[in-house]
Amino acid sequence: MVHNITNYVTANDVANIILACGANPVMADEPAEVEEITALCGALNINLGTLNMRRAESMFRAGRAARRLGHPIVLDPVGAGSSRLRTDTALRIIRELEPDVVRGNISEIRSLICGSGSTKGVDANGADAVTEDKLGRAVSFVKNAALQIGGVVVVSGAIDLASDGSRCYVVRNGRPEMSRVTGTGCQLSGMVASFLAAVHGPGERLEAVAAAVCGMGLAGEVAWEHMEPYEGNSAYRGRIIDAVSLMDGAVLDRGANYEVW
Amino acid sequence: MVHNITNYVTANDVANIILACGANPVMADEPAEVEEITALCGALNINLGTLNMRRAESMFRAGRAARRLGHPIVLDPVGAGSSRLRTDTALRIIRELEPDVVRGNISEIRSLICGSGSTKGVDANGADAVTEDKLGRAVSFVKNAALQIGGVVVVSGAIDLASDGSRCYVVRNGRPEMSRVTGTGCQLSGMVASFLAAVHGPGERLEAVAAAVCGMGLAGEVAWEHMEPYEGNSAYRGRIIDAVSLMDGAVLDRGANYEVW
Amino acid sequence: MVHNITNYVTANDVANIILACGANPVMADEPAEVEEITALCGALNINLGTLNMRRAESMFRAGRAARRLGHPIVLDPVGAGSSRLRTDTALRIIRELEPDVVRGNISEIRSLICGSGSTKGVDANGADAVTEDKLGRAVSFVKNAALQIGGVVVVSGAIDLASDGSRCYVVRNGRPEMSRVTGTGCQLSGMVASFLAAVHGPGERLEAVAAAVCGMGLAGEVAWEHMEPYEGNSAYRGRIIDAVSLMDGAVLDRGANYEVW
Repeated sequence: MVHNITNYVTANDVANIILACGANPVMADEPAEVEEITALCGALNINLGTLNMRRAESMFRAGRAARRLGHPIVLDPVGAGSSRLRTDTALRIIRELEPDVVRGNISEIRSLICGSGSTKGVDANGADAVTEDKLGRAVSFVKNAALQIGGVVVVSGAIDLASDGSRCYVVRNGRPEMSRVTGTGCQLSGMVASFLAAVHGPGERLEAVAAAVCGMGLAGEVAWEHMEPYEGNSAYRGRIIDAVSLMDGAVLDRGANYEVW
Repeated sequence: MVHNITNYVTANDVANIILACGANPVMADEPAEVEEITALCGALNINLGTLNMRRAESMFRAGRAARRLGHPIVLDPVGAGSSRLRTDTALRIIRELEPDVVRGNISEIRSLICGSGSTKGVDANGADAVTEDKLGRAVSFVKNAALQIGGVVVVSGAIDLASDGSRCYVVRNGRPEMSRVTGTGCQLSGMVASFLAAVHGPGERLEAVAAAVCGMGLAGEVAWEHMEPYEGNSAYRGRIIDAVSLMDGAVLDRGANYEVW
Repeated sequence: MVHNITNYVTANDVANIILACGANPVMADEPAEVEEITALCGALNINLGTLNMRRAESMFRAGRAARRLGHPIVLDPVGAGSSRLRTDTALRIIRELEPDVVRGNISEIRSLICGSGSTKGVDANGADAVTEDKLGRAVSFVKNAALQIGGVVVVSGAIDLASDGSRCYVVRNGRPEMSRVTGTGCQLSGMVASFLAAVHGPGERLEAVAAAVCGMGLAGEVAWEHMEPYEGNSAYRGRIIDAVSLMDGAVLDRGANYEVW
């Protein structure tokens, strides 16, 4: 079971992708109950989309409970850099809750590391994008970010990067059309939390995270093959979740496209 | 029209399935307006998913208005047993608002009746499951639960049970894959409220509830027939709502698979 | 980028249709951050569905910031007429924020203009419907409403009307089945905000609004052509968004069905 404190825009998709992974989602964000809910679960997924003050308090309460219990915590700092509330809340979560994984786009992660970088809402702006010709610098940035944050950092984009500070997975799964579906990032964070709930020691965490990143990207590729000419971003949204629900270890092994730097 | 005070995870699916039933959904959860909204509607559907304090207050305000007006009330005690807030709120709703129908999984209902039983979030845990070999005991449990609660109790699972305390519908429609779609329970509660809004006297309520239970399960069966090999839980989610929207009385009569104990 | 302060029932669909339009959605409704978020965006979309006090405060804060910055504001007065809170909030937004566009069904708009008219929740009730034989009166009503409100008024229905007070677009795109999908109105408001974010002067606004109205209706027509016999309102919901994502200027020019009165 994965406890999600998340936004109301993509909560349904996150719940369905967690079910597609074979895990069970629980959404609960009232301060009065989140500690009990977290205690029943195996991982905590904190997402800053549609953040409000009440939900922020729940994040800290649930996060402290998860820390005490040794449950993995995933932070998705949606919109960090676009308001002080989002940036400050993300930084305070990193400092006080020490999340095991922070997953965002390059602008969001950059705003947490550098204080600079203005995120265009929840989407990476062009200047920051991780591309083949700037890959070396991007890998160094993500490794340093992981060291600074003290956990695994995932930067999602045309190329996905996932690092624990020493190694960095460079993942080339996925399709550009995924960025025209709302919530693919939130869904990946939910998958990461589901995968973390299933592993046993901190030593396996980077691999679990990388598997989720490859799996989500691969689902985007598989889903694209089944698109009809008259289908668009709404159909794609559903087919990605479908592809996750049908994916097994063999498909993932065969389709995962990554290097370790 | 059906007034829903419900969670933000499945609110869209609940709205669409109520439309699929031929009814009209209204979602409103601000204490300042819920009494007026309820007065415009024919039924009230209270769902404890993503419960918070403000929404809880709205449930009691709307519920008291519905009681005064004689509108049927459905309670879906999502997560009862998983936190004191959920269990206590569900019990207080039963005591103060006397809902006409309480619909949940076996763990949720058990936690309301016995105080025991730990629900695994929103899913029934294995030990409690209603199965053929434990059916007699399960029917007795649901009948007693209905007497204790003072309304119709529906327990959803592999076999669905619906009782008013004297009779119990044992429904064998549905498919196990429905449990991998988030919100099929919430949707059924929305259907139950829609069906109740259309009946005239308390004497017809158990039949209306049983029809909704059969209808939802049958929709799950019909929907499954149209699944492509590359489709998964997201496609299934949509096809279930589609099947409800296309279902007429003849299809339901032919496909309903139930006994009365 | 479009800043949406909207309800949790249709937020996902609104986000996906804004992406389908080629724009980027941001959903943020916490008073502490909405001014910063609005400043990053090109338009503000205010929707009164599932209104609460906190979100209402955010609407005024964001709206005043948008006004200062010269950003277009769209108001979707969901449920105006069904509670004092909704009606009063809509009227106060019109008075204090002077939205560029107000889009609703005939009952909602009537309740804002006349104080009379009881909306059946979010759906137009029959007596008010815009029909061919009452078209002249309806056009006059919408023109007067636009003058009174001081912005473009869009009345959605079997025939859609959009007026700035002097001219009125009479749009005959769309299909009746769109009313069985939750949130098609909310989605249109999101499209209108996206289109407004892309135009440069107030002089182009009525045309941009009319293009969005035609585009949404046309998407409903195109989507219907791809429906399988076993598909219902859930599939239709997705196919409408898909049709928007695939629509280009040529398709819209060819399919738009309107007169200017």
